[in-house]
Amino acid sequence: MSKIIVQKFGGTSVGSVERIDAVAEIIKNASKSNYIIVVVSAMGGETNKLIKLSKHFSEDPDKREFDALVSTGETVSSALLAMALHSKGIKAKSYSASQIAMKTTNTFSKAKILDVNAKKILEVVKDNTIPIITGFQGITEGGDVTTLGRGGSDTTAVAIAAQVGALRCDIYTDVDGIFTTDPKIVSNAKKLDSITMEEMLELAGQGAKVMQTRAVEFANKYNVPVRVLSSFNEGNGTLITLKDESMENALVSGIAFQKDQIKFTLHGVGDVPGTAFRILGPISDAEVEVDVIVQNVSVDGKTDFTFTVSSEDEDTVKRVLENVKNDISFKELIVDSNIAKVSLVGVGMRSQAGVASKAFKALSENDVNIQIICTSEIKITMVVEKDLVDKTVEVLHKEFELEK
Amino acid sequence: MSKIIVQKFGGTSVGSVERIDAVAEIIKNASKSNYIIVVVSAMGGETNKLIKLSKHFSEDPDKREFDALVSTGETVSSALLAMALHSKGIKAKSYSASQIAMKTTNTFSKAKILDVNAKKILEVVKDNTIPIITGFQGITEGGDVTTLGRGGSDTTAVAIAAQVGALRCDIYTDVDGIFTTDPKIVSNAKKLDSITMEEMLELAGQGAKVMQTRAVEFANKYNVPVRVLSSFNEGNGTLITLKDESMENALVSGIAFQKDQIKFTLHGVGDVPGTAFRILGPISDAEVEVDVIVQNVSVDGKTDFTFTVSSEDEDTVKRVLENVKNDISFKELIVDSNIAKVSLVGVGMRSQAGVASKAFKALSENDVNIQIICTSEIKITMVVEKDLVDKTVEVLHKEFELEK
Repeated sequence: MSKIIVQKFGGTSVGSVERIDAVAEIIKNASKSNYIIVVVSAMGGETNKLIKLSKHFSEDPDKREFDALVSTGETVSSALLAMALHSKGIKAKSYSASQIAMKTTNTFSKAKILDVNAKKILEVVKDNTIPIITGFQGITEGGDVTTLGRGGSDTTAVAIAAQVGALRCDIYTDVDGIFTTDPKIVSNAKKLDSITMEEMLELAGQGAKVMQTRAVEFANKYNVPVRVLSSFNEGNGTLITLKDESMENALVSGIAFQKDQIKFTLHGVGDVPGTAFRILGPISDAEVEVDVIVQNVSVDGKTDFTFTVSSEDEDTVKRVLENVKNDISFKELIVDSNIAKVSLVGVGMRSQAGVASKAFKALSENDVNIQIICTSEIKITMVVEKDLVDKTVEVLHKEFELEK
Repeated sequence: MSKIIVQKFGGTSVGSVERIDAVAEIIKNASKSNYIIVVVSAMGGETNKLIKLSKHFSEDPDKREFDALVSTGETVSSALLAMALHSKGIKAKSYSASQIAMKTTNTFSKAKILDVNAKKILEVVKDNTIPIITGFQGITEGGDVTTLGRGGSDTTAVAIAAQVGALRCDIYTDVDGIFTTDPKIVSNAKKLDSITMEEMLELAGQGAKVMQTRAVEFANKYNVPVRVLSSFNEGNGTLITLKDESMENALVSGIAFQKDQIKFTLHGVGDVPGTAFRILGPISDAEVEVDVIVQNVSVDGKTDFTFTVSSEDEDTVKRVLENVKNDISFKELIVDSNIAKVSLVGVGMRSQAGVASKAFKALSENDVNIQIICTSEIKITMVVEKDLVDKTVEVLHKEFELEK
C-alpha cells in the first residue's frame, strides 16, 4: 500500500484563487503515488484583515471571540481548495477543527494541541477522498474555538502526520527551502539540502520564519520527517532529518535573526534564591515565551536581570511585572525595543571550539557592539542594536564562508 | 422575571464596524428591560464575496463545500458583535450552529431546521450573558455544516424564539416596517402598524423581501409574535399579529411583486390522472419551490401545464424535466423568463367579492395584459410581462387607495 504524506500550504501558497488552483495541481500530482492529507492556512492577508476589524472594538479583544473570528480564514481556504480539487476531478472534503475533533487546551490564541480524531481522517483517506483540514484551529473540551498562535498551521500538520503515522510532512511555503541565512540580506546565501532537527529547532526559534518552532518540536518528539519546500517553484526543498546523518558537519549551518524583539532589564534586583522564578513564573503563566535570559554578576547583593520577549508580548509582560512588583523589589525597569537577535547555528559547534571567539573578532573588526551573549551547545545568540542586524548577518555569513 | 426577546439583525444592519456598534447600542438598551438573545447575519456583501470566490472553481460548486464556505460570514459578524457589546460593558458570547447544536436536514444550501439546543442557550442567558448566535448556519447529524438558503437567518431567529419560549422575535432590517407596497415604486406607500400572519405569509412568499416565507411559517406554526423594524431609524415597525385582531379589515392590505421569476409551460401534455404529480414530484424532490401552477382546459385529451419558479432554479428544473421526459409525453417545452408576478393581499378579500374584477378592470384600462391569474382566499396573483411590473403595482395601489 502506498503511504500517507501530509502536505501543508501556507498563506502565500493559497493567497489567491489562482494560487489555490496551482496548489490543487501539486496535490493532484502527489496523489498519484501516495495518499494525501492536506492542511491549509488562511489566504494570505485574510487573517490580518479580520484582526483589523476586531481592533475597531478593542485593542485587546476578548480572546474567545478573537479566536472564533480569525479561525474563519482557514475554513474559507479549506472549502475553496476542496472545490479546486473537484474541478480537477479529485475527490476532496474540507474539515474544520471541530469536525475532526482537534482538541486543544483552552488557552485562547495560544492553544496547545491535545488530541485529534485520526480515525475519522483515515476513514476519509480510505474512501479515496483527500481531507483538506483547516490549520491553526482547535476546539476546547467545551466546544469553544481556539487558535494555535501565529504559524500554528505547521503544528496542525505535524500533529496530524504524527497521529496518522505519515511517511513525511511536507511544509509548502514561499521559499525554496532553508537557507544559510536570509537571501534578502546576503545575496549568496545557500539553500541546504538537509538540516538536522536540532539545527532547525534553533533556527526556527530564532526567527528563520520558515516553520514554527512548536511544529519542529512536535516533529522531533514524534519522529516525523519534515520537508520544507516551495509551492511556487519546482524543487526538493530542504529535508529536516531526524538524526544527523552526514559524515562531516559544517561548523555553522546557518544564521538566524529576529527584529521584533524587546528587552526588559530589572535593575538592582535582590540576588536571592528564587528571584528568577518569581519573575519568570508569572510571565510563563501568561503564556509569554521568554527567550534570552541573562543575570549579571552580583554586586552588593543586587544584580541586573535581563530577558527578551517578542514585541507583541510587551503589554502583557509590563502588566505581569506591575502585578509582581511588590514580591520582587528592584530599583528600575528598563525597557528597550531598539534591539534584535542574531544567532549562529550548527551541530558542528559541539565538537569544535573557537566559533564564538571567531564571531566576536569579526564583529569587533566591523564595529558591531554585542549587548548580550548567550550560548548553547549548537547555538550562539547575540543581541545587537536593531539597525546593525543586516551588517551583523553579512559579516558572519562571510566569516564562516556559508556561501560555499 | 423579565421575558426573553430574540433580536435578529440582517446584513445591512451589521454592514460595517460602525453599524455593528449601532446594533450593540440597540441590544444594550433592550437588555435593560428584557433578556436578549441575538441572531445575526453576515456583514452585508460578505456572503456575495465568498460566492464570487467559489465561482472561480465552478459555476455549480459542491454544495457541502459551498455551505462550509459561505457560513463563515455569520461566524465573523457574531464574534465582532460580541466584541462590540464587550466594549459597552455588556457580557456576550458568540455561538456557531455547531456550538448550539442547530441540527438541520442534510440538504445543503436549503437545509431545514430540525432541532436546537435551547437548554444551552438558556444557560448562557441565565448567566446574564447575551448569546450572539450565527443565523443561516446549521449542522447535520454527521457534523457537516449546512446553510438554510437566502434569508435563512430569519428562520434561525424564529426557531430559537419558539424553542426558548420568547415573548417576541424582533427582525431588525433596513426598512421601517411592512408597507402597502414597495415605496421605491409607489412614493405614497404606507407603513402598516400591524399585519396578520396570513397576510404576511402571502406578502413574504410574493417577494415583499422583508422577511423569509419559511420564517413567517415557523412563527405561524409556533405562535411566535414577530415584529419587523429598522435598525437605522427609531420606530415601532410592523407587528405581525397571530390573529386578525382588528375589527374591520381593509379590502387589500398590500401589493407584493417579484421579478426574478421564470415560467415553464409543457405544451400538449396528456390530461391523465397523475400528470401533475409526475411533473411536480421530481421538481419538489430537487428542493425547488414551485409557485403559480395552472393547468388549462383539456382539448382532445391534451392540456398545457404551466408553473413558475424562482429564476435561480432554472437549470435545476430543466435538468429534472429532461430526466422525466420519457414518463411524461409532451409536445413542446416553453420557457419564458420575461415575466414577473404581482399579488394583491388582504384578509378582507375573504368576505368581500369583486376585488378581482375591480383589479382586472383597472389594469385593462391601463393596457396591462395579465398572462396568468391565480387566486386564493386572501390573495390574487397575476403574472405579467416583466417590463409592466412597476405600472401594474402603481395602478393597483391607486385603485385600492392604499396610500390612505
